[in-house]
Amino acid sequence: MAIESINITKKFEKFSDFWSPKVIAEMNDYQFKLAKIEGEFIWHSHLETDEAFIVIEGELIIELRDGTVDLKKGEMYIVPKGVEHKPVAKNECRIMLIEPKGVTNTGDQTNKLTSENDVWI
Amino acid sequence: MAIESINITKKFEKFSDFWSPKVIAEMNDYQFKLAKIEGEFIWHSHLETDEAFIVIEGELIIELRDGTVDLKKGEMYIVPKGVEHKPVAKNECRIMLIEPKGVTNTGDQTNKLTSENDVWI
Repeated sequence: MAIESINITKKFEKFSDFWSPKVIAEMNDYQFKLAKIEGEFIWHSHLETDEAFIVIEGELIIELRDGTVDLKKGEMYIVPKGVEHKPVAKNECRIMLIEPKGVTNTGDQTNKLTSENDVWI
Repeated sequence: MAIESINITKKFEKFSDFWSPKVIAEMNDYQFKLAKIEGEFIWHSHLETDEAFIVIEGELIIELRDGTVDLKKGEMYIVPKGVEHKPVAKNECRIMLIEPKGVTNTGDQTNKLTSENDVWI
């Protein structure tokens, strides 16, 4: 019997909104999420967890208070727990996030960019 | 200050042995590991955890007792905790594994394919 895999590229075709992570898989109490991003996000931190970013397409800049991480396709970075960061994408960028279930995209901040959690595609 | 990202493709250039996962990043108590694989692995399971597979290059087949998952570049699959599986790659394949720190590649089995754990590149 053929069991279906998860095709990351095809999953990106299932949504169009920016800065709104969608869940594609769960591993124990962690989730794999996809997001389309463009422009500047807000400064925030996640007080309870590290957060993994992998660039699938495009270019992501993660601004930190003490430096900048420039991520191209096929590159990744782990933002440590409690570290303030601001994701920025000059052009549309597609990223995968891996983090514990329940983590909110704006972390310790709440504003208009705060996205609904646990939305599966 | 420019902070270095983790380039997955370049990390693969740092080792050549097969079936021997190398750690490239840690997120809380989870690790991101890269492996080059070719041929058939052994049937095994991880009694304590799910295990995420992402294909970076090539094609991976995960045989399960009740079916087969065929994974191409950019596809992923989560093998649930306790589920027996056998990874197979007809040709050289490059994969990323995400799982808790301390997970052994051969799970509940120990044989000549059992790899040293927590080897960073």
